[in-house]
Amino acid sequence: MNIITNPERSAWKEMLKRPTLNTDILRNTVSEVLNRIRMEGDKAVVEYEEKFDKVRLSSLAVTEKEFAEAEKEVSIELKAAIMLAYNNIRTFHSSQKFEGKKVTTLPGVTCWQKAVAIEKVGLYIPGGTAPLFSTVLMLATPAQIAGCKEIVLCTPPDRTGKIHPAILYAAKIAGVSRVFKAGGVQAIGAMAYGTESVPKVYKIFGPGNQYVTAAKQQVSLRDVAIDMPAGPSEVAVLADETANPAFVAADLLSQAEHGTDSQAILITTSQDLLQSVTEEVDRQLPSLFRKNIAEKSLANSKLILVKTIDEAIEMVNEYAPEHLIIETKDYVNVAEKIVNAGSVFLGAYSPESAGDYASGTNHTLPTNGYAKAYSGVSVDSFIRKITYQEVTAEGIATIGPAIEVLAANEYLDAHKNAVSVRLETLK
Amino acid sequence: MNIITNPERSAWKEMLKRPTLNTDILRNTVSEVLNRIRMEGDKAVVEYEEKFDKVRLSSLAVTEKEFAEAEKEVSIELKAAIMLAYNNIRTFHSSQKFEGKKVTTLPGVTCWQKAVAIEKVGLYIPGGTAPLFSTVLMLATPAQIAGCKEIVLCTPPDRTGKIHPAILYAAKIAGVSRVFKAGGVQAIGAMAYGTESVPKVYKIFGPGNQYVTAAKQQVSLRDVAIDMPAGPSEVAVLADETANPAFVAADLLSQAEHGTDSQAILITTSQDLLQSVTEEVDRQLPSLFRKNIAEKSLANSKLILVKTIDEAIEMVNEYAPEHLIIETKDYVNVAEKIVNAGSVFLGAYSPESAGDYASGTNHTLPTNGYAKAYSGVSVDSFIRKITYQEVTAEGIATIGPAIEVLAANEYLDAHKNAVSVRLETLK
Repeated sequence: MNIITNPERSAWKEMLKRPTLNTDILRNTVSEVLNRIRMEGDKAVVEYEEKFDKVRLSSLAVTEKEFAEAEKEVSIELKAAIMLAYNNIRTFHSSQKFEGKKVTTLPGVTCWQKAVAIEKVGLYIPGGTAPLFSTVLMLATPAQIAGCKEIVLCTPPDRTGKIHPAILYAAKIAGVSRVFKAGGVQAIGAMAYGTESVPKVYKIFGPGNQYVTAAKQQVSLRDVAIDMPAGPSEVAVLADETANPAFVAADLLSQAEHGTDSQAILITTSQDLLQSVTEEVDRQLPSLFRKNIAEKSLANSKLILVKTIDEAIEMVNEYAPEHLIIETKDYVNVAEKIVNAGSVFLGAYSPESAGDYASGTNHTLPTNGYAKAYSGVSVDSFIRKITYQEVTAEGIATIGPAIEVLAANEYLDAHKNAVSVRLETLK
Repeated sequence: MNIITNPERSAWKEMLKRPTLNTDILRNTVSEVLNRIRMEGDKAVVEYEEKFDKVRLSSLAVTEKEFAEAEKEVSIELKAAIMLAYNNIRTFHSSQKFEGKKVTTLPGVTCWQKAVAIEKVGLYIPGGTAPLFSTVLMLATPAQIAGCKEIVLCTPPDRTGKIHPAILYAAKIAGVSRVFKAGGVQAIGAMAYGTESVPKVYKIFGPGNQYVTAAKQQVSLRDVAIDMPAGPSEVAVLADETANPAFVAADLLSQAEHGTDSQAILITTSQDLLQSVTEEVDRQLPSLFRKNIAEKSLANSKLILVKTIDEAIEMVNEYAPEHLIIETKDYVNVAEKIVNAGSVFLGAYSPESAGDYASGTNHTLPTNGYAKAYSGVSVDSFIRKITYQEVTAEGIATIGPAIEVLAANEYLDAHKNAVSVRLETLK
C-alpha cells in the first residue's frame, strides 16, 4: 500500500489517476467475432463456445428441466439469502417507479412524460472464478419492476455445458424470461443482432472482461444501447479518527479481492487511523481465500492523509469513486457534500458488501470516474420517458404566432407553415 | 412519395428501414483532428477553424461585448418569441426535478437516491443553413434547471468570426456560462479534452453532421458521456379519416425540409386521406423556401395505407419514430398504446413545430429507431442519481448473516469478512 501524506492540490490529478483500459487493440479481434455472429447466428455462437469455453453445446437455451434441477441443487440457506436480497432490491427499486405529471405550460398546451419499459433487454453475466448470481438479481429485478417484456440472460456454461445453479435460481425468481449458454463477445453479439435462438434486444447490461467491454462498445455505436462504460471496480473510504480500523481494513480488502486491477483508496484526516488500518490489513490479509489477488491490487492502493474533512471531500469528488464509504463522526453532513460517486455507504455498519448484496441498492455502478456523468443501474435504466403534448385550438392560438416567428428566424418555412395552416382555420 | 397499400407484416422490416449512417469511414479523419486537439489545444482549434470554417480567430471565447451587441441586434419580436418558448420549456422541465424518497428495506437498512447535477456539460450547436437558437434553449434550459455549474457552448462562427446574435441571446437567457467559437470535430475535441480556453466537460450534448456524430462516438468510448447516438430527423403521422389533409401535408413537409435525408411517413387507415394528403403536398410544396430540400426527402418518404388503427399502432411501435403525430378521432386511446417513440403530438392542433419550438417539451430526441432504448433529452440527462445507504447496528445484524452466505457462495471471502468483523463487535 502506498502512503501519501498531505499531497499538494496540484498533485491530485496524477495521484488519483486510474490505469487506462485501452480496448482499441482488441478491436479487430472483437469485430471479427461480432461479424461472424451477425452473419451466421447460432452456428457461430456454438463454434466460439467450443473455442473459448471448451464446451460443445447442442443447444443454447437453458431448458425447463435444467431450471428445475438447479432449484434442487441450491441449498436452503443460499435460497433464503437470495430471497432476502431479492426482496430488499425489489423494495428499493420499486420506489423508483416514475409517475409523470401533466403540466399546462400555457392555456391549451399540456405536456407530460410517460414511462415505458424497454421491451427487450439483455443481461450478461460473466463466468470466471465467481458465480455472480448477485448480479443476476441486480440487473433482472429492476428490469422486472420496469415491466420489460423480454428479459434475456446470457452466461457462459462450464466445460460440462452447465450453468451454476444459483445463477439459474436467481434468474428464475427475478423474472428472467430466457437464459442462454453463451459467453464473451459471442454473447454480446447474439443479443445485439439476434440469432435463431437468442432474440435481438434493445439494450445490453452487465459486467465482463476487456473483450466483453470492447464488444459492448462496438455494438453500442449503432445496434443497441448499453448500460454504461466499464472499468475495474473501486472503493474510496473517507474516515476520521472515530473510524474502526478493523472495519476500514476489511472494506479495503473486500474491494482488493475483486481483481488485481481493483482500486482501494483510504482518505483520512487521522494519522493514527492510517497507521492502524495498515496493521489491520496485514493482520486480516493472510487468512483470506483470495489473498494473492488482494495482495496484488493492494500494491496499487493508496492511503492518503489530508488535513481537513473538507479537503477529503474535495478529493473524493475529484476521484468520483464507484463506491464511497464514509466513516466519520458527522457522516450525514459529509454525505451532503458528495457530488461525484456511484453508491455511498454511511457509518460504521454500512460495509460495501451490504450494497453489493442485500441492502437494496444496485451494485452495477459507474467506475473509472464515470460517476461524474453516469448513474448506477436503476429502474430508470430499463425505461424510456416518452414526451407527449396536446395543444388545443386555444393553445395553438396562444403559442402559434411565436412559433411562426421562431421558425421564420431559423429559415424553416415549412415549420412555420404547419402552424399557419392551423391558425388559418381558426380565423 | 411512395404509396404503399396494405403491406404484409413480413414486409414491414424492410419497408421501415432507415438509410444506414456509417461513420466508420470517417474514423481516421476524425481521430486525427481529435488527437491534435488533445495534444495542442487552442492552437489546433484555431487552425482547424481556419481550415474548415474559413475564419482566422484571435480568441475562441465570446466576449461580454459580443453578447451585448448580439442583444441589440435581435429584434423585439424574436426576443418575445424566444422568451415565450424559454418560459414554456422551463415550466415543463422544472416539473421533471427528481425528489428521492428514503426507503427502509428492513429495520435499520435505509436506502435512497440523491439527484446531483453533472458539474460541467458541453453543448454543441451546429452552424450551417439555420441558426439553431431553439436548440440552445432545448439544451441549456434543462442544464440550468438541473443545476449544472458550468454550461459550455461551442458553435462555429461565420466567416467574419461572428456568431448569430439569436444564438448568443438564447444562450444568455438560458444560463450558458461561456460560449466558444468552434465547430465540428474540433469543438467536440475541445470540450472532451479541454484546451487552454475551453474547459473539459463531463457530458456533451447536441446535434451535428456526420463528422460531429463520429467525433461524439469516438470521445464517448473513454473520455466523456454523450446525450445519445444521432441520425437523420424523422416524423410519423398516424391519421384516420377525421384528419385534416392540409395539416398532415404541412407536418410531413415540415419534416422534409430539415434535410435531404429526413424521413416523413404517413400511416393511415383512410384511402381518401392518403389521396388528399398527396394533393395537399403538391399544393403546399411550391411556395416553400426550402422546397428543393423537401422535394428530395419526399422522394424517400412513404404514405402507407393499413387496414386498422391497431395495425397502424403496431407499425408505429415497430418503426419507433423520433416524432409521432396522432391525428385520429380517439387519439387519447391510440396514444396509450404507443410504446416506442421520442415525442408524441396529439390531435389536430399539435404540429411537430409546436414541440420543436415552444410547447415546452424537448426537441432533442432519439432518431433512427433508438427510441426503442433511449429517451429524449430532459432534466434527467443533466443529473446523476447517487444511491445512499445507511445500515445501523440493528440493520447489519438483520441482513449481515445473509450477506455472509451470499459472499461465501460467490467465493468472495473478504466481502464476507467485512460483515463478519462488524457482527463480531455486536456479540
